[in-house]
Amino acid sequence: MSRSYVIGLDYGSESARGVILDAVTGEQIDSHVHAYRHGILTGALPGGAALPRGWALQNAADYVEAAEEILGRLGRNRRVLSIGVGFTASSPMPATSEGAALSDIHPNDPHAYVKLWKHGAAQPYADAINRKGGGFLDNFGGKLSGEWLLPKAAQIAQEAPHIWAAAARFMEGGDWLVWQLCGTEARSLGLAAYKAQYSRVSGYPKGIVPGLEGKLSQPLPVGSAAGSLLPAWHARTGIEGPTTIAVAVIDSHVVLPAIGAVSSGCFVGALGTSAAYLYLGADYRSLPAGIEGVAIDGAVRDLWCYEAGQASFGDMLAWFVKAFPRGGSMEESFALYNAAASRLPAGSNHLIALDWWNGNRVPLADSMLSGLLLGLTVHSTADGIYRALLEALCFGARTVLDLYRAAEFTVDRVLMTSGLAKKNPLLVQIMADVMECAIEVPQIANATAVGAAIHGAVAAGLVGTYRDGSARFGAREFQTYRPRPETAEPYRALYAQYRTLCANASLRRVMRDLGEVAAAPGEVSLPPQPRDGGSVA
Amino acid sequence: MSRSYVIGLDYGSESARGVILDAVTGEQIDSHVHAYRHGILTGALPGGAALPRGWALQNAADYVEAAEEILGRLGRNRRVLSIGVGFTASSPMPATSEGAALSDIHPNDPHAYVKLWKHGAAQPYADAINRKGGGFLDNFGGKLSGEWLLPKAAQIAQEAPHIWAAAARFMEGGDWLVWQLCGTEARSLGLAAYKAQYSRVSGYPKGIVPGLEGKLSQPLPVGSAAGSLLPAWHARTGIEGPTTIAVAVIDSHVVLPAIGAVSSGCFVGALGTSAAYLYLGADYRSLPAGIEGVAIDGAVRDLWCYEAGQASFGDMLAWFVKAFPRGGSMEESFALYNAAASRLPAGSNHLIALDWWNGNRVPLADSMLSGLLLGLTVHSTADGIYRALLEALCFGARTVLDLYRAAEFTVDRVLMTSGLAKKNPLLVQIMADVMECAIEVPQIANATAVGAAIHGAVAAGLVGTYRDGSARFGAREFQTYRPRPETAEPYRALYAQYRTLCANASLRRVMRDLGEVAAAPGEVSLPPQPRDGGSVA
Repeated sequence: MSRSYVIGLDYGSESARGVILDAVTGEQIDSHVHAYRHGILTGALPGGAALPRGWALQNAADYVEAAEEILGRLGRNRRVLSIGVGFTASSPMPATSEGAALSDIHPNDPHAYVKLWKHGAAQPYADAINRKGGGFLDNFGGKLSGEWLLPKAAQIAQEAPHIWAAAARFMEGGDWLVWQLCGTEARSLGLAAYKAQYSRVSGYPKGIVPGLEGKLSQPLPVGSAAGSLLPAWHARTGIEGPTTIAVAVIDSHVVLPAIGAVSSGCFVGALGTSAAYLYLGADYRSLPAGIEGVAIDGAVRDLWCYEAGQASFGDMLAWFVKAFPRGGSMEESFALYNAAASRLPAGSNHLIALDWWNGNRVPLADSMLSGLLLGLTVHSTADGIYRALLEALCFGARTVLDLYRAAEFTVDRVLMTSGLAKKNPLLVQIMADVMECAIEVPQIANATAVGAAIHGAVAAGLVGTYRDGSARFGAREFQTYRPRPETAEPYRALYAQYRTLCANASLRRVMRDLGEVAAAPGEVSLPPQPRDGGSVA
Repeated sequence: MSRSYVIGLDYGSESARGVILDAVTGEQIDSHVHAYRHGILTGALPGGAALPRGWALQNAADYVEAAEEILGRLGRNRRVLSIGVGFTASSPMPATSEGAALSDIHPNDPHAYVKLWKHGAAQPYADAINRKGGGFLDNFGGKLSGEWLLPKAAQIAQEAPHIWAAAARFMEGGDWLVWQLCGTEARSLGLAAYKAQYSRVSGYPKGIVPGLEGKLSQPLPVGSAAGSLLPAWHARTGIEGPTTIAVAVIDSHVVLPAIGAVSSGCFVGALGTSAAYLYLGADYRSLPAGIEGVAIDGAVRDLWCYEAGQASFGDMLAWFVKAFPRGGSMEESFALYNAAASRLPAGSNHLIALDWWNGNRVPLADSMLSGLLLGLTVHSTADGIYRALLEALCFGARTVLDLYRAAEFTVDRVLMTSGLAKKNPLLVQIMADVMECAIEVPQIANATAVGAAIHGAVAAGLVGTYRDGSARFGAREFQTYRPRPETAEPYRALYAQYRTLCANASLRRVMRDLGEVAAAPGEVSLPPQPRDGGSVA
């Protein structure tokens, strides 16, 4: 019998990545990255039409082109049993009843394109929906984000009624790509639940956007087969079949089985530009204040996946080394700051920061808040400040973890993944110190794409459960960071102060007012430099 | 008739500076600086005996050497009618009944030397005196500084009773130098009032340090003649006489007549490493909370001089450019930061700082407080932060000015002098904007020494009043900075926020607690850098 394979696809904001694994041994065979032809459209459409500020679109055709390129590179002349897809979300788009992207039909209309997750212009529609309220917000901390599907649908319906009328279907990009691959509209429960507030009990929210319900369809749990790869795709890519296509999965969730997070009690942090924290639980509980969303069967089958996050994470550190460079490159600056900061004992900088460079999500959910640095003296150092920023990120992370602890969720394992978990061991060590628990960092390449492949393997029945899929394809080694006892006392004291600052309402009012201070107009002129005073003959 | 001159001497911490002026025209003829042979003794005595941490001594013989060198350089073969002396304070020393410095007799005993103003080891004695309290503290904000004479006397009496017993006199260094020059013990009312809490009504505080009263003597108002230069000094320096010697003046006060601050209603800031603010008033009022001292005839005759200050000023800016250098030298960094910050409209940085890098003096008098920076986002810049520090210094300065305004003192003129007033026009411009009043920066070289010379001229009767002395010898040009109307609105808003932060008791508690956080012991080790995860064949 010839060797067989599985493929995982990870559609990010700038590019798509694919990985191919041996279906039996789980070995990673190859991987490939393909940047989207049009990237992110923020200034103008491909045809030249200008876009307003805050817009962020994509061209759905780029997704197909990426799939063709990656699948052909990885799968040609190979028997591929399954393909799983992870996808950025919410990135919805209008389509015809046959699944054609409206951007192919109305290429000069911005509303015909994919609204990428970070398209910000739908925020006023989210605000309006939130003011109206409704029970569908109960599992989402009482409010929609402007990044999600409902406000983006509302924006099109309001601003481009002709496009809205022409859109027989309104699809997440991930669901649309699956449709292209297998010819069947099979939506993901993960995308529907977290991004369109679908619930098994009450379906999609009703009466929010005129006509929207007719453009949606019932979703399937993650790990479900959407269909088989179409013959035309076999021809274009050289892949040998039969090839099961799984329903899409939100990119921030899809990694879970690749890093062994497939059971109740796992707390998983994805430490990127911002940080997302997922908790897997066997039981449903009403959301503790500060948790931002929950659904079952949307991330891993049969488990409730709770979501929360920090608005600022890696970008705050990147800001610091850009504002105050030390080496010739950012990498070099990071290396120098990390080396120096690692030599400072915990508590020795006598500084504390609030990590709110992009506002705060947990526990205050207030994007108008801003960062703070306190304790500055003439003895403070740049290294000490850098370390205070690392510590503040960890205090913010512990604030999230403490929400679950306070609600008596059992936390059995703490896992950290994504860029900073791999690149910044000092950060992860401080996080273990601050959280006072062991942190595991899975050692696996292309984790997100591998997670997508495991979803495909489950959908195709190649493994019976996510646990089996994780064992076969997922991370086999974990770097474990254990809390250092000598740091417990200083970090308990500092964390208590961090929480005291969080609770300081007057301080938060100053932060909000500061955003409102009107700048003096124009450039300002100074009087001429004074001459040197007096004269000595 | 041959030309005649006046000399002013300015005794600082590291060196003494002299200036000679034409007694009739006021023209500056020459100046000379002489560094003390032993500088500041912090590690060991000249004979090698080690000093404990926090000590800062000087060798009185260095003062005499400096006088001989400077007077000889400037005055040889010239008819010098008067010499005035400005001196750092409180820098007291024990002496014999004939005026010999005990350090000449007991060269290996640290307590026999001058305790320089910044000698910190007497602070516990100040604390003890303050706990006991007394009416003599009423004009000094209710407490002594550890830098002043009484705690330094208490330290000697307690720690070196044999030196205390041998000290027939306990003298400020300035008074001692005057004694050396003219052979008469003639103390300065300025030194006695501000540094030893002497008052005309009740004399020196009683019962604080055993035997102290017998080692002091009644002081004379500033501008009084202490005596005439001794024949031996005429011989050593070549100065022709007769030469009147004025009583000494505190260095931070002596500048006033040189910059035209000789009338009621002048508010004068000396913007150095820290900032001192003096207010001259015709009337006495009980001290507004936050003002740190007041006396009459101690700075300028017939005027009450009120004192307050900011613990951190130029050192906070120097800290920033050292911690985050931009150019090859501090000067270059300052120039680049100032140029960039001057291009930012007021309020455009959306940042606010508390200028408490060395704790706060006004209005909280709490040295355990620390600096704060608030409003940080990924859009903040190093230039914006630098400007926020400039602005915070100005908000702190306005806080001092507002104390007087709130107590209904009339402020007719605002003058700024010392290093930063000359070197940093952006800072002074922002200060005018924030204070919403014009600021005058006197243009005169060697201002402090010129002020000393004016005191000498008053003492010798060469001018009838300080006003006349100021007109003849003082600054003739002033650079005026006027508030820019466009900055009023943003700076009013920011100053209100600054005051809100000052009033935030919970925030201040965190600052104090932060100083108490115990650092984790020793150096900490990190787990090995994780290997790159997984493998791709």
